[in-house]
Amino acid sequence: MNNIIVIGAGVAGLTASIYLGRSGLKVSVIAGDVPGGQLTKTSFVENYPGFAKPILGVDLMMQMMEQASRFGAEIIYDTVTSVTIERIVTLASGTAVAPDAILIATGCSHNKLGIPGEHEFTNKGVSWCATCDGPLYRNKKVAVVGGGNAAVMETIFLSNFASEVLLIHRRDTLRADKSEQEKIFSNSKIKCIWNSEVINIQGDSKLKSITLRNKHDRCTDMEIDGLFIAIGMHPATDFVKEVVRLDNAGYVIASETETSVPGIFVAGDVVSGSLKQAIYAAGQGALAARAIERWLGVRL
Amino acid sequence: MNNIIVIGAGVAGLTASIYLGRSGLKVSVIAGDVPGGQLTKTSFVENYPGFAKPILGVDLMMQMMEQASRFGAEIIYDTVTSVTIERIVTLASGTAVAPDAILIATGCSHNKLGIPGEHEFTNKGVSWCATCDGPLYRNKKVAVVGGGNAAVMETIFLSNFASEVLLIHRRDTLRADKSEQEKIFSNSKIKCIWNSEVINIQGDSKLKSITLRNKHDRCTDMEIDGLFIAIGMHPATDFVKEVVRLDNAGYVIASETETSVPGIFVAGDVVSGSLKQAIYAAGQGALAARAIERWLGVRL
Repeated sequence: MNNIIVIGAGVAGLTASIYLGRSGLKVSVIAGDVPGGQLTKTSFVENYPGFAKPILGVDLMMQMMEQASRFGAEIIYDTVTSVTIERIVTLASGTAVAPDAILIATGCSHNKLGIPGEHEFTNKGVSWCATCDGPLYRNKKVAVVGGGNAAVMETIFLSNFASEVLLIHRRDTLRADKSEQEKIFSNSKIKCIWNSEVINIQGDSKLKSITLRNKHDRCTDMEIDGLFIAIGMHPATDFVKEVVRLDNAGYVIASETETSVPGIFVAGDVVSGSLKQAIYAAGQGALAARAIERWLGVRL
Repeated sequence: MNNIIVIGAGVAGLTASIYLGRSGLKVSVIAGDVPGGQLTKTSFVENYPGFAKPILGVDLMMQMMEQASRFGAEIIYDTVTSVTIERIVTLASGTAVAPDAILIATGCSHNKLGIPGEHEFTNKGVSWCATCDGPLYRNKKVAVVGGGNAAVMETIFLSNFASEVLLIHRRDTLRADKSEQEKIFSNSKIKCIWNSEVINIQGDSKLKSITLRNKHDRCTDMEIDGLFIAIGMHPATDFVKEVVRLDNAGYVIASETETSVPGIFVAGDVVSGSLKQAIYAAGQGALAARAIERWLGVRL
């Protein structure tokens, strides 16, 4: 019987496991630090198709985990420390296994500001995804922290909903393309706050205000309804960085779901250039399962 | 305000509508003959991630339809008769509209044998998808009808579960590649029945047997547990065949979700070469929404 190791128990890894398990293959899912992935860090999910009413991210992932288990996938609460080109997978517990195929589905995480209130008010006014949470801030005042492409994209997208969008950047120029900057400057809803950092987030049951510090060390409080933190993401690929081809930001370069190493596949947010949405990661998980089944010869 | 016409109310079209609606865009979904798409023709779905227990296909689609409506998508019970390169959409009712963007999400349908019992025993022993239903026939005797690549793929995949797989073909050679045929002939679970057609399907609450007719017009009954019909599919693209580029089989050729015509997008089973699985169609629906939002300038 073929053995498959799926690294990561988020949407992509679990979807692949459901498909592979139903195909009668032996799947072990190494769940890592955060079983359930990014969705367990959100509160209610409105845009995962199939649920007319919002569902808690953690509930959705519990369902998916149970579904994968039902089809025989074994969830292992351990972390992968290394993978070799010969497909030897070593776990933090010391175990080493040699599966017939590997799926990397470790996702990526948002970079944090590391300031007081950031963790406390996440999903209570602090958000990490404008596509997911933007619609909740219709006619509200929001701020975006960051100066790269992601921050500019989030700012423009939020201007479709919010009454006012402040783009807070610690420098006095944006790194985004000129043409994209133009869209920021010509949009009357958007205001840039230069040379400033957010140093504190305040509120009660939800975010009420943020404290800004400018380059002269002057601090001001500002009332806002929502804060979108867009200072980059980091994919979880340290354990394979010497094995499969990565892009400059550390994401896995893939042709559909194939990495540069035969027998090592990839799906979900950890893939270079992927749409960072749960439903897309799920679709790619199913595609990876198909590719793995072909690799193992159980399917043409 | 931008107007978007989504043609088709299956998984791909509704997922795109959920995303576009949440982004504050005005979406009309032309539901056509089969609101809910292919999934409404199946019974229980086991492999749509997020549901630990099997869910009725029709229930899943009702949820998705309600979810799209909740975010403002208007479901129109009409059929598109034509689309022009200038994006004029004409409906069977006579209405013509000129949206800013169009999403083709009309899916595809299985070709039918057109024999007694085929409709009656669908989901009661007659199946149209080995990936979906194959695992339900572990250690059972099944038959596949067809002689093309799809039939050969289904046959080989089913041999992972079934105790015996009969491949029934009306000719005496397969159209599939030689190397793939070899996998059929060398598999001890698979037996080919040449020059034969299935002319009747019998059973009570479920399929019990099929009647085969050979080229000498001799008929024999054969007891089986499941019949997989794999005689091809046809995409619903007649209404756009003069407008967007199609492949030889009539599927829409796409670069991700873009067709050959700017402003006309495509997602789901109707796309050339796509994985015909609901969760994949959903992921591509989300990707199409992103592309449409960029096309309309509401997102970078």
